[in-house]
Amino acid sequence: MSGSSFGKIFHISTFGESHGAALGVVIDGVPAGLPIDINFIQSELDRRRPGQSGLTTARKEGDQAEILSGVLNGIATGTPLAIIIRNTDQRSKDYSKLEHSFRPGHADYTYNAKYGIRDVRGGGRSSGRETAARVAAGAVAKLFLQTLGVKITAYAQEIAGIKAETFDTDEIEKNPARCPDADAAKAMIEAVAQAAAQKDSVGGIVGCQICGVPAGWGEPVFDKLDALLAHAMLSLGAVKGIEFGAGFASAALRGSENNDALQPGANPFVTNNAGGILGGISNGDEINFRIAVKPTPSISQEQSTIDDSGNACTMEITGRHDPCIVPRIIPVVEAMAALVLADCALLQRTTRLD
Amino acid sequence: MSGSSFGKIFHISTFGESHGAALGVVIDGVPAGLPIDINFIQSELDRRRPGQSGLTTARKEGDQAEILSGVLNGIATGTPLAIIIRNTDQRSKDYSKLEHSFRPGHADYTYNAKYGIRDVRGGGRSSGRETAARVAAGAVAKLFLQTLGVKITAYAQEIAGIKAETFDTDEIEKNPARCPDADAAKAMIEAVAQAAAQKDSVGGIVGCQICGVPAGWGEPVFDKLDALLAHAMLSLGAVKGIEFGAGFASAALRGSENNDALQPGANPFVTNNAGGILGGISNGDEINFRIAVKPTPSISQEQSTIDDSGNACTMEITGRHDPCIVPRIIPVVEAMAALVLADCALLQRTTRLD
Amino acid sequence: MSGSSFGKIFHISTFGESHGAALGVVIDGVPAGLPIDINFIQSELDRRRPGQSGLTTARKEGDQAEILSGVLNGIATGTPLAIIIRNTDQRSKDYSKLEHSFRPGHADYTYNAKYGIRDVRGGGRSSGRETAARVAAGAVAKLFLQTLGVKITAYAQEIAGIKAETFDTDEIEKNPARCPDADAAKAMIEAVAQAAAQKDSVGGIVGCQICGVPAGWGEPVFDKLDALLAHAMLSLGAVKGIEFGAGFASAALRGSENNDALQPGANPFVTNNAGGILGGISNGDEINFRIAVKPTPSISQEQSTIDDSGNACTMEITGRHDPCIVPRIIPVVEAMAALVLADCALLQRTTRLD
Amino acid sequence: MSGSSFGKIFHISTFGESHGAALGVVIDGVPAGLPIDINFIQSELDRRRPGQSGLTTARKEGDQAEILSGVLNGIATGTPLAIIIRNTDQRSKDYSKLEHSFRPGHADYTYNAKYGIRDVRGGGRSSGRETAARVAAGAVAKLFLQTLGVKITAYAQEIAGIKAETFDTDEIEKNPARCPDADAAKAMIEAVAQAAAQKDSVGGIVGCQICGVPAGWGEPVFDKLDALLAHAMLSLGAVKGIEFGAGFASAALRGSENNDALQPGANPFVTNNAGGILGGISNGDEINFRIAVKPTPSISQEQSTIDDSGNACTMEITGRHDPCIVPRIIPVVEAMAALVLADCALLQRTTRLD
Repeated sequence: MSGSSFGKIFHISTFGESHGAALGVVIDGVPAGLPIDINFIQSELDRRRPGQSGLTTARKEGDQAEILSGVLNGIATGTPLAIIIRNTDQRSKDYSKLEHSFRPGHADYTYNAKYGIRDVRGGGRSSGRETAARVAAGAVAKLFLQTLGVKITAYAQEIAGIKAETFDTDEIEKNPARCPDADAAKAMIEAVAQAAAQKDSVGGIVGCQICGVPAGWGEPVFDKLDALLAHAMLSLGAVKGIEFGAGFASAALRGSENNDALQPGANPFVTNNAGGILGGISNGDEINFRIAVKPTPSISQEQSTIDDSGNACTMEITGRHDPCIVPRIIPVVEAMAALVLADCALLQRTTRLD
Repeated sequence: MSGSSFGKIFHISTFGESHGAALGVVIDGVPAGLPIDINFIQSELDRRRPGQSGLTTARKEGDQAEILSGVLNGIATGTPLAIIIRNTDQRSKDYSKLEHSFRPGHADYTYNAKYGIRDVRGGGRSSGRETAARVAAGAVAKLFLQTLGVKITAYAQEIAGIKAETFDTDEIEKNPARCPDADAAKAMIEAVAQAAAQKDSVGGIVGCQICGVPAGWGEPVFDKLDALLAHAMLSLGAVKGIEFGAGFASAALRGSENNDALQPGANPFVTNNAGGILGGISNGDEINFRIAVKPTPSISQEQSTIDDSGNACTMEITGRHDPCIVPRIIPVVEAMAALVLADCALLQRTTRLD
Repeated sequence: MSGSSFGKIFHISTFGESHGAALGVVIDGVPAGLPIDINFIQSELDRRRPGQSGLTTARKEGDQAEILSGVLNGIATGTPLAIIIRNTDQRSKDYSKLEHSFRPGHADYTYNAKYGIRDVRGGGRSSGRETAARVAAGAVAKLFLQTLGVKITAYAQEIAGIKAETFDTDEIEKNPARCPDADAAKAMIEAVAQAAAQKDSVGGIVGCQICGVPAGWGEPVFDKLDALLAHAMLSLGAVKGIEFGAGFASAALRGSENNDALQPGANPFVTNNAGGILGGISNGDEINFRIAVKPTPSISQEQSTIDDSGNACTMEITGRHDPCIVPRIIPVVEAMAALVLADCALLQRTTRLD
Repeated sequence: MSGSSFGKIFHISTFGESHGAALGVVIDGVPAGLPIDINFIQSELDRRRPGQSGLTTARKEGDQAEILSGVLNGIATGTPLAIIIRNTDQRSKDYSKLEHSFRPGHADYTYNAKYGIRDVRGGGRSSGRETAARVAAGAVAKLFLQTLGVKITAYAQEIAGIKAETFDTDEIEKNPARCPDADAAKAMIEAVAQAAAQKDSVGGIVGCQICGVPAGWGEPVFDKLDALLAHAMLSLGAVKGIEFGAGFASAALRGSENNDALQPGANPFVTNNAGGILGGISNGDEINFRIAVKPTPSISQEQSTIDDSGNACTMEITGRHDPCIVPRIIPVVEAMAALVLADCALLQRTTRLD
């Protein structure tokens, strides 16, 4: 119920600051009997980890997952599964200048307004580093969803205004942009490098497609599947929008164009403007959505801001930061989608009498 | 926790089908001492009611609110406030043909898949009529927010591809499109009429701006204010996307362009690409977002579909339906925003020691 | 999450004051496909209704249940099932004297302290009348549990210090005390009459046994089955204690006496000091508990109290009140137990991988 | 919402098995600005720790608390506060014999039935060791409650049938029984030693009094303060009953005896049969309740049981176990009460308009 908890049955509580002792998550509701592959969890964390390429920060966060509970001989026991990730490369001194002024585009100002106190070291809880705990939890959700045949794939659809024109699933993890179009990936990488050279950053659009979800998941009227996915995605600090299926384009379509006709067959939908969700319930077709990712707010240019006494000042952010967050947010998007779907899968078991 | 409940402290549970006996809502967590103006609740329901203009359905739903509990001499007592709205104009025979086939773009197929049973009368629970209960609850939330100086205004930013070019708040409720641009409103109304004449429907984009929210509302990391608003908006069946502030456009901006600089002053933000929310917490600036509304799926053209035995068939939907849902979804958008904000306002009271 | 909601999956929200327009409940999470027998719901309400005998108040509350949603042709559709009960026999004038002073043993003082406002008509929300909504919801839970072979039986074990010495299930509903011992019942009835004649009231102990619950229900570590039942029972205003199995007597036993040995067999437990619950999980044996019910606080003797200015005064409560609440609380105890068990039954479906 | 979470605003999620890597808790909702005294948390854990006296097990569990997040320079930041306690003295071999048979009085049988898998090492999650995480969380709750002047004191009222006859608060922590009557304490200690010498165990009754709670806490109708406390206490595996104020004795009283009259004064209640709670809301008087603690099920006598193939067998439990759990459950009782009260204190902030 608290702001750091998510999900009803597959329920997680995360904790941890960027430069605190550790990040972590308690996952309650992991179905007993699920094999827990720690190597898979670690490999998902490695996908999110900084320092994977020139597109991302050079910090080495390590991000070694340790399971503290809930698993016996590699099998989930049904009790809470806790995972912690120690922080090792903290360099707190990098942030000492920021103590009394607010970084534009960051949550410094609002954390101060909300709590009256704020952990300035690396952004504290508002740092993107917090998402490591989500990825660990999402990996467990993925292990569960794999047993149901559900597959989640996120990818860079656009970076710095450059769009993927082709879609090759196998290509995604082969380039540092995580773009399904190898040519577009090269242009994206170049654009990011150029922005970085200019002490600037770029944004992009992440697509996500989910295959294998049977018809019937989602809990109307408020916990519609798209509502839960939107909640999940907008809970990522860098995300400024989401659209499902035809999305914003559907606003300019007519009903006769936008409605997905049905025909006999295993997947009866002729088209998929709905994005795989009707009335908030999965329809058995591929679920797809796209999210808008803003350019990284941490840039090393001089910016105008105010200090905590309200006086004007300037700042240059000198730490190591991703010039583009898109490649590293991709595993986080998958993780959040997995958490939503794992919960919906379990909730659907309670829907009918038999 | 169930799918028909929303909110933590200001917590609502709604019920009711399109053609059942009644719709309604139980609101728990209304602060004791709040004056409850039943006329205001009714006026909000009237804004959502069908039959207001040629843009909307000719059905007369009446939508008379009755308060059953929680109010004494016009003052909320702190106990649950229940409101019911009897269904009066049901005409169940209109829907008899739909019993064994699935309307394209509707939730017929997915409700069947989820529950194994479905109320075909007017779409049952999946009907937009369900939102009447949300509007009643939202009206109570608005009464609370008014005591805090919060004002929520939604409007038609685009209908049938026609965009509002000017923004005059006073104009919104004067035209049936609820468009802040009187000239655009005329063109919108004409476009809707044209689509209706062609047995078709159109979609649009609804904008929403919220003034008066102090810095500090929203509950990171999962219940960020934008995450909750996105959850609320995507829980409306016709909504296919949402964006905050610069939204999808921010994906093509650089950090130096997208960051909102700060300067001394009561509202320190020079620009508002953030849409009034930073790190999931309100920053004291105007909150704004836009949602994509799909064209009404109920159209009287012949459409291809299947019956519940999986065989191909066609259908023409003959009932009375809105050729454009935008004008009537506007009070619902405001209601859902009010529910989110009322809850965040109360939660913020628990955040600090003092 | 709010105080008038209960349950996670089988989730209810109740509303209503003693002398308001209506009482009611919204039940979300009723499994789709469950046959809903309105006559059974009504018969349960009739068991709780006042005026059944000389032991209980002469008020005629009628308590006619109306289902507003969630049922189609007698079958639950999986959407929220709302039930209302109109208040018909209100006689508000009976309570006019109580407006500015606090009835001893009642919640008048504490509602005032909590909310700063209180509905004095019949105790408002703090009236036992509120439990009618629980009984309606519990009846639906019972309908679900019946499909699983679960049977809940509550009964008067002690009234006015007179104990049931024999246990005949068939006898319970035959006497107005709802006592399984016909002889004790007569003595109880006499004792209640005597207290009433002396403008006084008596309390008692209600026993409850639950048969047919399979091993495995309950959600450690906080939502143990006994913890949930205790929560449910202590949420009844008149209940001052609960004990399971050997209960308070186990405090004086040795481990060798209290442990229930196991032996081969369908029900392996040789004894049942545990009351059918081990480690918070049902063990397949009969579940049993007892609750302490305080004497009705409304008595027509003169009592010392204070008014809302803090001055001493006296009052005589003149309305019609049960001299003993035990017989009428019995269906409420069953209802609350049913709500707990229905929820646990559904939650257990999510516990394992397969 | 999951079984290992507790509380709404002051919300905890615990994890950990008796012989896993670590136990711990994530506390969300700690008010920002609260000073966090790690030494106090440790001292509370020390009160629960085994090996404090001959009454308790000789295991040395160490129970060193480590705070991982949510605290900056000794002050809570409002973000989740995570605490872990590493397990150090595990001796798994002690439990190897128990793998295929069920200990009487333990949750072995029911965990198997529920999850289909069970961690046999020290009882896994069903071990009383799990309560260390509760004590750590409860210590933080106590720190918050101290700022409000609330004081919680639990004590041994009865052990092995020997009752405390006098009540000296200062005496409680001076004797290993935690009994407020020094003479009774001696007799209790002797009785425990005698039972232990006979390879047996004893139970008892724990009293708890809470001072300083203002009138107004508790959330009717389901989350009454006594309902929440009952939920909290019955969530402890060894507890078989609870009673408030006059408790079970009130069942034999008349209304004229049981009602607490009011008189002018700061605490207007002349008597306290209610136990400080009326209608589920604190009345400003001392809150008090008593719980029944069963004798420790782990005894080294031979006991009859079955193995997991359903065959009869016997077992002698050879590990180190408390012959009486009462002294060590006392800090746990206080912790659970503190968690309930901290949550109610924060919820009460949301109840009124002003």
